[in-house]
Amino acid sequence: MTNGLQKLRSLSAEVADLRHAADLLEWDERVYMPDRGATTHGEMLATLRRIAHEKFASAEMGDAIETARAEAAGLGDGGAAERLVEVTARDYDKAIKVPAAFVAEYAEAVSASQQAWGQARAQSDFSAFKPFLERIVALKRRYVAFFPPAEHPYDVLLDDFEPSMKTAEVRAIFEALRSRQVELIRALGAAPSTDDSFLRVPYAEADMLAFAVEVITAFGFDWSRGRQDKSLHPFATAIGADDVRITTRWVEGMPLSLLFGTMHETGHALYEQGVKPEHHRSALEGGASLGIHESQSRLWENLVGRSLPFWQLFYPRLQARFPSQLSGVSLEQFYRAINKVQPSLIRVEADEATYNLHVMLRVELEIALIEGTISVTDLPERWNAGMREYLGLTPPDAARGVLQDIHWSAGLFGYFATYTLGNVIAAQLWRRFEEVHPERDADIRRGEFRPLLEWLRRELHQHGREYRPTQLVHRITGSSVDPDPYLRYLEEKYGRMAAGRLN
Amino acid sequence: MTNGLQKLRSLSAEVADLRHAADLLEWDERVYMPDRGATTHGEMLATLRRIAHEKFASAEMGDAIETARAEAAGLGDGGAAERLVEVTARDYDKAIKVPAAFVAEYAEAVSASQQAWGQARAQSDFSAFKPFLERIVALKRRYVAFFPPAEHPYDVLLDDFEPSMKTAEVRAIFEALRSRQVELIRALGAAPSTDDSFLRVPYAEADMLAFAVEVITAFGFDWSRGRQDKSLHPFATAIGADDVRITTRWVEGMPLSLLFGTMHETGHALYEQGVKPEHHRSALEGGASLGIHESQSRLWENLVGRSLPFWQLFYPRLQARFPSQLSGVSLEQFYRAINKVQPSLIRVEADEATYNLHVMLRVELEIALIEGTISVTDLPERWNAGMREYLGLTPPDAARGVLQDIHWSAGLFGYFATYTLGNVIAAQLWRRFEEVHPERDADIRRGEFRPLLEWLRRELHQHGREYRPTQLVHRITGSSVDPDPYLRYLEEKYGRMAAGRLN
Repeated sequence: MTNGLQKLRSLSAEVADLRHAADLLEWDERVYMPDRGATTHGEMLATLRRIAHEKFASAEMGDAIETARAEAAGLGDGGAAERLVEVTARDYDKAIKVPAAFVAEYAEAVSASQQAWGQARAQSDFSAFKPFLERIVALKRRYVAFFPPAEHPYDVLLDDFEPSMKTAEVRAIFEALRSRQVELIRALGAAPSTDDSFLRVPYAEADMLAFAVEVITAFGFDWSRGRQDKSLHPFATAIGADDVRITTRWVEGMPLSLLFGTMHETGHALYEQGVKPEHHRSALEGGASLGIHESQSRLWENLVGRSLPFWQLFYPRLQARFPSQLSGVSLEQFYRAINKVQPSLIRVEADEATYNLHVMLRVELEIALIEGTISVTDLPERWNAGMREYLGLTPPDAARGVLQDIHWSAGLFGYFATYTLGNVIAAQLWRRFEEVHPERDADIRRGEFRPLLEWLRRELHQHGREYRPTQLVHRITGSSVDPDPYLRYLEEKYGRMAAGRLN
Repeated sequence: MTNGLQKLRSLSAEVADLRHAADLLEWDERVYMPDRGATTHGEMLATLRRIAHEKFASAEMGDAIETARAEAAGLGDGGAAERLVEVTARDYDKAIKVPAAFVAEYAEAVSASQQAWGQARAQSDFSAFKPFLERIVALKRRYVAFFPPAEHPYDVLLDDFEPSMKTAEVRAIFEALRSRQVELIRALGAAPSTDDSFLRVPYAEADMLAFAVEVITAFGFDWSRGRQDKSLHPFATAIGADDVRITTRWVEGMPLSLLFGTMHETGHALYEQGVKPEHHRSALEGGASLGIHESQSRLWENLVGRSLPFWQLFYPRLQARFPSQLSGVSLEQFYRAINKVQPSLIRVEADEATYNLHVMLRVELEIALIEGTISVTDLPERWNAGMREYLGLTPPDAARGVLQDIHWSAGLFGYFATYTLGNVIAAQLWRRFEEVHPERDADIRRGEFRPLLEWLRRELHQHGREYRPTQLVHRITGSSVDPDPYLRYLEEKYGRMAAGRLN
């Protein structure tokens, strides 16, 4: 008898349907909703999310989990049912700990805070945002208190994005990265500057989009189970593995932003399209964590998309689409331009070598806010001090400093770290793949991406949320989350370029 | 104290949110969903529709209605709360009469039947569809039996689309139309044929779309509360009055189909955009009936869009967009071509003068099927006999005959009549508007559509479902649903053309 498991599956399917519908509504809101539809959309979303929560955090679900747990132990199915029950139970235990009244208060605060942030950023006025952020920080500390005491209070927040990851682990990884990355950037700063003026002439959006579509089709994006549209900020969303949608945007004066952004979102999409069908509508669907997800977007965007083998094949094709802009530019010039290192103020525009330093700054500050070792009042000064230390720059105003990201206004504490974890894990996977498939670069040079995608599918994508992120990294690479491959990748790549070589 | 009314409103709002979300999912399915997303979409839709039904047909809602009814009686608000309670109660009484097991069986039968219909139509093989249609007819008869005995069993089905309309009323209207329409068509058949060869040369889709957008913007379509996309079959859907979406399509060889289709869907959309905000998320949102809805689409498509005053203004603009196709074609030639009467086999391609005869044939046959006076086996022969009698044509095959419409396969018995009711009511409104606003045609000739839209908004749109369709027609025109204005409109318009005049 597996009545409990059946019940767990049918309740989970119903909740998944509601969440999928909400995800599709959010996609619509960002892509096609008419301006004045926002209120109606807000109502629908609030109702769907609330009903999904009520049905998931129900006594019925609690009972189904308990019954299913006993059934799963004796099934002899290689632990598949046990993993399903474990992950569902983990989500359930979190869901029932937070009172509905808090959820409502928090949603209201986030909504007000995001609006205030938008206005404050437009006016570069941190003081206008300060009381809203103070309220958010206080609410996050109250949220932490709903859970059993952890090693570090920030662990509770991290767990929402990176299940089971500890603050201490994140700090250790960041510690290892910090000195070597700062050193690398200083060394590169001394080199002669790279000419990328050919990226500042006009390019046609439609041609760049067509090129990006050619690239991600070669990567393996399945258009019968996905689509691409335009939105203000690029994102990827999965309405289940058979309907995965990405968006892109055109930034005037940054012609390659569309291309690299598309590769990035495609990395997320390939992950979602690869989750095994039996996980559909269960707690095991979707990605293992934001960090693992980001490892996929970064792998395709940077390790593939900014690599020499990739451009050895694709640069002539890009030149053919943009002859007037690129016919006089050599592969080497182009490769150097897209890999130019330049400390800058804005995280989302940062290059591979400086990106993590932006992240570290934010993570250190948010840990301190949650600990209470700094206050919201201290933030602008601490931000600017960190920017000087890591990148040698001082933001001229709050908009280009402490107010630049939406995350804190949206209550997303614990999120930033996953960007760096993604970079680190991507490099670990990249190295491991080369060990098992030494033809890695040769394959890319001839546009053969199937071995890479099939390996990722088999080792990572198909499992969805079966394993915790650190377990998954260990299963694939035999190692814990380790920054060394990432640092060596950076040091070798930029070391070669500094030495006047490409490979 | 109005606790019951408040409860009724909050439960209705929740149900409306779920239905709006389902409507948006259906829009997405027909407009942007990737091919293989159908299963995931089907799951989401089934879950949303089921939860919406459970929440609406709940004991809690029943109690709220009873309490609210008592409260509404004493409010002195001009009957607003009473109408809300009455309409909610009417929907509720219908919803609780049909057992959940029947709903599930019916949904499954419809899904199988629609698939079978698609294949049968492709192969023009009625016998392959016959068992499925027999099952649907049997289910519709079981459905009728859930309700108290009506004057005629078909009344129950009609009521789902045209609340309170009786089979006897529909028959009387059709009786009045039949002989005069058949006579009109015979008379027109004797006239020399109209040259519309200039509509069979190539036109550019993008230019026609731009022209259609110009036209519906002039009509008053609010783009901040709506949008237009492409789909296989044109439709309009409202996610509430602030998000109303229409679709269109391009049919190769029928360049004006996009234009008239867009005007038609805009008629539906203008209605939905005009429903008063306080009806949002209640039983009073949306249109009063399918017939009233169709009166709006037909009014803008035919009474405005195929009128001489409209083209006196817009034809030069169309010529400017299509100089090579239309510069040698006079307004009169063009006007005659778009108003050409020609009996044809396919309902959706029928002109204004023959359209109702297609509808009558279907309504007579479905009434007989529900009565049991004919069987599904008799259908093809009865269909062909009817086509000969009304239009003088014999379908060469089932695909162009009895299999052409999706409605019966989808269980939509009682739906067809609303097309003709829409035509009839549109003409009543049109005549009434001219009585209160004699500048009607002069306004249209100078592109001034606001008086018409404002009148429709005030008299009809804003009320949503407050009044039953016949009440509404009576409030506006002082008459019951009366085919005479429609017949006179046809006779005068085509009589003038036959006499060699335009007006």
